[in-house]
Amino acid sequence: MSHPTTPDQATASFAPADLYAEIQQFYARQMGLLDDGRPDDWADTFTTDAVFAEASRLAEPLRGREVIRASSRARQERLDADKIDFRHWLGMLDVRPQDDGSVRTRAYALAMRTPRGGQLEIFASVVCHDHLVRVNGAWQVRQRDLTHDGSARD
Amino acid sequence: MSHPTTPDQATASFAPADLYAEIQQFYARQMGLLDDGRPDDWADTFTTDAVFAEASRLAEPLRGREVIRASSRARQERLDADKIDFRHWLGMLDVRPQDDGSVRTRAYALAMRTPRGGQLEIFASVVCHDHLVRVNGAWQVRQRDLTHDGSARD
Amino acid sequence: MSHPTTPDQATASFAPADLYAEIQQFYARQMGLLDDGRPDDWADTFTTDAVFAEASRLAEPLRGREVIRASSRARQERLDADKIDFRHWLGMLDVRPQDDGSVRTRAYALAMRTPRGGQLEIFASVVCHDHLVRVNGAWQVRQRDLTHDGSARD
Repeated sequence: MSHPTTPDQATASFAPADLYAEIQQFYARQMGLLDDGRPDDWADTFTTDAVFAEASRLAEPLRGREVIRASSRARQERLDADKIDFRHWLGMLDVRPQDDGSVRTRAYALAMRTPRGGQLEIFASVVCHDHLVRVNGAWQVRQRDLTHDGSARD
Repeated sequence: MSHPTTPDQATASFAPADLYAEIQQFYARQMGLLDDGRPDDWADTFTTDAVFAEASRLAEPLRGREVIRASSRARQERLDADKIDFRHWLGMLDVRPQDDGSVRTRAYALAMRTPRGGQLEIFASVVCHDHLVRVNGAWQVRQRDLTHDGSARD
Repeated sequence: MSHPTTPDQATASFAPADLYAEIQQFYARQMGLLDDGRPDDWADTFTTDAVFAEASRLAEPLRGREVIRASSRARQERLDADKIDFRHWLGMLDVRPQDDGSVRTRAYALAMRTPRGGQLEIFASVVCHDHLVRVNGAWQVRQRDLTHDGSARD
């Protein structure tokens, strides 16, 4: 699950402002759906054949929107039962347009939760690599690779 | 204090890049004023009839710029006395232009403080819904609704 | 190390969207190089005569790219030895174009680390003031001033 950035990539041209603003808003809304407790709408932001990989957490990637949907519904039920507000905070976004019109992104993410009446806990720093494609005019995630800081490296 | 996002809204078109960049900078500067210890300049970023509501913290919203000013001056005096550096960090910004030229935003916010010589404490995750209007060419907050994670829901 | 924002500056016009998006991506990539463990590529994002000042941490600023390079290499060796994943998270970015084509920025930064198999620790809130110049088409840092929250003020 290594995504080395070559020197070439580091100096590659930047994504244009309209695309960059669009992807920033895409993530604000996508993570907002998940954090608002709407796992079904969140699952619909993935392509039907999407792959969701979480190195060090998932033995096998989740394959397909319906598998992602089932997983996120189960997760939401646990959060509801435990009365936990959860936030996914993405930032430090890099956007690299691909020749085929798709987009590859890298972002830092913080995972945090606050139990009802309890203290905020920011418990994980994660690096997120996405492959985004446009489907009927809307961005969707075709592939997501999450790498947790502090996990063993190859 | 519920702001449900409908599926329609989730797939609504994105704010154009120039507006999005403008609002990002507005927040960087507005929160910078507050964090730099300038409550008067900060208060001036609200409309004269602004409403500042903080569910779960304020029994009643603050109504009007001068009430907001008095509140933020008193807050700053406490921070100065306690020698605390305070930061308001906004991110995950969504911007929705309205037909009348105003803008509605949603952002995640983290509240954090560092006492002189002490440790950083990130103590609250908050969701911020603003209604922004342009007054003499400058954005101002007409309505701000803050909801703290971990607070009781209706 | 004071960078007061005057009321004039607070109401100054915003950076255009294309510049703002470019600088956001510059920071995502620059900090990504450092956090990916590439101190040499990171050092190359500074001008040859760059000054790196960290009030309250460095007795004297680092002067020159090669001094910055040596310092960041030594830092990386310590992180590797200690098996620590480190992240520099910048946000709340303000960008002020200068008449000579250079750019002055202000950003909030969080410094965080996760030891192998251990817990995330977000341990410092820092304000970063940069002077960026374009060299052969690429942005480079000519001057960086870091101020840690909680440090003594003049």
